[in-house]
Amino acid sequence: MTKIIEKSSEIIKYVQDARRDGAIIAFVPTMGAFHEGHLSLMRRARKDADKVIISVFVNPLQFSAGEDFDRYPRQLDLDMKLAESEQADILFVPTVAEIYPKGFATYIDQQDLPEKLCGAFRPGHFRGVMTVVAKLFNVVRPDIAYFGQKDYQQALIIRRMVTDLNFNILIKILPTIREEDGLAMSSRNVYLGPKQRKDATLIYKALKKADELIANGENSAPKVIKEMAKMIKKIKGVKIDYVSIVNQDTLEAIREIKGKTLIAVAVRVGKARLIDNIFIN
Amino acid sequence: MTKIIEKSSEIIKYVQDARRDGAIIAFVPTMGAFHEGHLSLMRRARKDADKVIISVFVNPLQFSAGEDFDRYPRQLDLDMKLAESEQADILFVPTVAEIYPKGFATYIDQQDLPEKLCGAFRPGHFRGVMTVVAKLFNVVRPDIAYFGQKDYQQALIIRRMVTDLNFNILIKILPTIREEDGLAMSSRNVYLGPKQRKDATLIYKALKKADELIANGENSAPKVIKEMAKMIKKIKGVKIDYVSIVNQDTLEAIREIKGKTLIAVAVRVGKARLIDNIFIN
Repeated sequence: MTKIIEKSSEIIKYVQDARRDGAIIAFVPTMGAFHEGHLSLMRRARKDADKVIISVFVNPLQFSAGEDFDRYPRQLDLDMKLAESEQADILFVPTVAEIYPKGFATYIDQQDLPEKLCGAFRPGHFRGVMTVVAKLFNVVRPDIAYFGQKDYQQALIIRRMVTDLNFNILIKILPTIREEDGLAMSSRNVYLGPKQRKDATLIYKALKKADELIANGENSAPKVIKEMAKMIKKIKGVKIDYVSIVNQDTLEAIREIKGKTLIAVAVRVGKARLIDNIFIN
Repeated sequence: MTKIIEKSSEIIKYVQDARRDGAIIAFVPTMGAFHEGHLSLMRRARKDADKVIISVFVNPLQFSAGEDFDRYPRQLDLDMKLAESEQADILFVPTVAEIYPKGFATYIDQQDLPEKLCGAFRPGHFRGVMTVVAKLFNVVRPDIAYFGQKDYQQALIIRRMVTDLNFNILIKILPTIREEDGLAMSSRNVYLGPKQRKDATLIYKALKKADELIANGENSAPKVIKEMAKMIKKIKGVKIDYVSIVNQDTLEAIREIKGKTLIAVAVRVGKARLIDNIFIN
């Protein structure tokens, strides 16, 4: 039985008791609206640990003005059933007032990584992510926390934060889960109309095309990006935020493709902002 | 026997073992060069807890360019003897490379409190303090941490950070310890020449005078500040950073003295920057 807990103090108590029994604690922070990507993290957590804690919190601090905080999908009853099917122990569902009480004034910032890729288009986004994740880490005190590769920049920033601020937590980044036609699963895919949904498959197709070009010996990032952009522009009404080829650790743009590389895309299609990426190793 | 530990990983191990035995952990973060103020915190920690951990780390991140990082007094052998005399269990003495390894990029910021009083004169100071204290808190994971009232703004900012970021730590602020002539004890008092040292007593005398004026019915902050400044200006070569009367919780300047009030002074005398404060309740 998965138990819903709303209060941080109850989580702290729960974890203290579990630790006294020597339990390994796994944590999956989410904004809810679970899809197979979330469930794959829960499954891995269930394998790794004695106690699995999932948080569901649509974090206002990581949305800019004009973004989709208000309409972000919320489906707690369904999420509860899904968490239960994955045998999660706790669904931690704090209120906004619990997380950001009156007088809240402390934030986590980071140099370098948060300025790259999505950071350039979503000012304050990663500050909001780091701040809420640091808070959740301090409440849950997990041994392991799980993030999806789809949000690779986020996972990398959190891993840097964990190292820099001496959180004693292992960060695991698990593969992106895709629909049958290749579209990366995302809670935001529900914003897409039928035509947009079909067109959106071009994002992953462009990434696969890049992979193929590189496998065939192309090592010029600008050339690969040009091919990708050509494909992505076929999505009706698309606005490209970026198509980037970067170093996998620093997220700095590279011109010559070599070493651990990330190819990352962010586009806007109607009301949906979609991101995806692949590794080239 | 007090034990010296240099590595965070060893502290983490030590604390995990102690916790398994149900120990209460007390933590006193310091920059070393112990005086009676530090020792009073250690004594209280010894009374409150099963394990007492003291950190000694002169934190480069909280010094601005041109401040006294290089000449800040360092006396580890003597500090070790003093910690031992107070029956501390652990002296945690990390290197700068241990605390800020290559690639370090994450910082804690706070709105409001860090802009007041000393914050206006030491840009980045409280960011540096919060960042190192958050790191030390994550390594030591204490139940209680101790700060002196002399650095009241620092203690208030740390308490805010602890609340905001969900550290599960009680912050205790203990009274300022003074020399016989009233000068607040500070590791920086060693910078004073004999004449400066004598003149410096005027700081606390001005605070006492303010207390007396207010006890006798004066409730105009500007009038009290004027009297104090007059006294402090008698210190030869003094430069006043501020003489302020503020709300004890918000550190906002007040004109009419009422409720929980803080009177705070910061001055520069030769190479020493000295601060002191008293509560008016």
